[in-house]
Amino acid sequence: MANSPSGDSVVERVVRVLETFTPDRTVQRVSEIGRHAALPSSTAHRLVDELVAAGLLERDEEQRVRLGLRLWELALRGSTVLRLRQAALPAMERVQAIVRQHTQLAVLEHDETLFIERLSHPEAGANIARVAGRLPLHASSAGLTLLAFAAPEVRDRVLAAPLPRLGPRTPTEPEQLRRTLAEIRRTGHVVAPGSVEGVSTGVAVPVRDAGTVVAAVSVILPRGADPGPARAALQAAAGEIEAELRQTRA
Amino acid sequence: MANSPSGDSVVERVVRVLETFTPDRTVQRVSEIGRHAALPSSTAHRLVDELVAAGLLERDEEQRVRLGLRLWELALRGSTVLRLRQAALPAMERVQAIVRQHTQLAVLEHDETLFIERLSHPEAGANIARVAGRLPLHASSAGLTLLAFAAPEVRDRVLAAPLPRLGPRTPTEPEQLRRTLAEIRRTGHVVAPGSVEGVSTGVAVPVRDAGTVVAAVSVILPRGADPGPARAALQAAAGEIEAELRQTRA
Repeated sequence: MANSPSGDSVVERVVRVLETFTPDRTVQRVSEIGRHAALPSSTAHRLVDELVAAGLLERDEEQRVRLGLRLWELALRGSTVLRLRQAALPAMERVQAIVRQHTQLAVLEHDETLFIERLSHPEAGANIARVAGRLPLHASSAGLTLLAFAAPEVRDRVLAAPLPRLGPRTPTEPEQLRRTLAEIRRTGHVVAPGSVEGVSTGVAVPVRDAGTVVAAVSVILPRGADPGPARAALQAAAGEIEAELRQTRA
Repeated sequence: MANSPSGDSVVERVVRVLETFTPDRTVQRVSEIGRHAALPSSTAHRLVDELVAAGLLERDEEQRVRLGLRLWELALRGSTVLRLRQAALPAMERVQAIVRQHTQLAVLEHDETLFIERLSHPEAGANIARVAGRLPLHASSAGLTLLAFAAPEVRDRVLAAPLPRLGPRTPTEPEQLRRTLAEIRRTGHVVAPGSVEGVSTGVAVPVRDAGTVVAAVSVILPRGADPGPARAALQAAAGEIEAELRQTRA
């Protein structure tokens, strides 16, 4: 439907335009959008006009363009992410009140860890994850948890691909990673020191909905901190989130 | 670009498809999507195929379709909403810890109140607002605050349009509403009993970024509760959010 001479659909070009907006580039001119999306100038102008008319983009008086609130609304309103983070937020707040460190909720998306919620703590340490940000599955406590309980084909795919080193103790050997994942399945939690950053230790547990692991909740501790209280708080939180999910299922 | 015989663009049809997903309808078959979006069956199938290929929709083994995580990610990653709610969340948590009632963050979008964050309290009372949900501007404490500080043309437009009654004390007379808005601008807060629901009272204050009101934070109290502590907590929160916004601007 509605393909350009180069064969890409309008939908693909819309996605390319939306992809040019990032945390570091929330406002752009049409010329920048066209350049970053590799679209001819006339195409970029027409597409931006259409997206502005539909409310998916917004244009200010100075002709600068940003993502529209309408896009955010459409993406969230009928989204299963919203159900998950609404179910998780009260429990995450309780974890944060106890542990007083960054508390996160992550899901597996296209073989990566996608962070869908994060409560930051003013006194907490380093943490490179951000909301709507991604990390490789093997390189965070949340990702390791998601990978441990993922479908076998996802695990095989990740283990067969290169395992880049993000922190001093990121597991980069497939056999070592396989053992870590088996251990996570056995104990139901992971303590991962230095898997993302040398200065921090991630602690994560799985969250199940209808028997399937759908998310991981994690806390980032300063390296060397006792992971026990965080683990206990996360396990309690996972139970609360699962109860909440059961309720919203009915 | 790429208009159908009926003259609507592909972008408009994409929006119509996305609009069919709602909090009560997060999973649909293509036939339902086509019906709700008023699209011919063949068009609906082609468009859903393209949206699935781009990751904006997801299809499960049973051919049921839901909004894709990719859509959520694109909508949030480069979004100014994300900056606002990340700046607001810690302060909102402190409000909720003190007031122990629903705490909300709202923005003005196309002459309506759009709620972009909500912390619910398990013991709290009725509240019809939800995340990514909308209410008329005159019919909630957050909306009244946003309207009070809106551009004059927005105020004139809202005051000229019908003012539906949502609660027993929704302001429905333009002159009465105009006086309420002037009072909000004078005092910097609003206490609105029964403007949405008879059983509750909304309390709201504005949040400024670079001198302009960009949001309202509000708390929903049981009708008859003393609004004083909530107002004080909200005013402190607004100050904290504004400081945070100043910092992320730099």
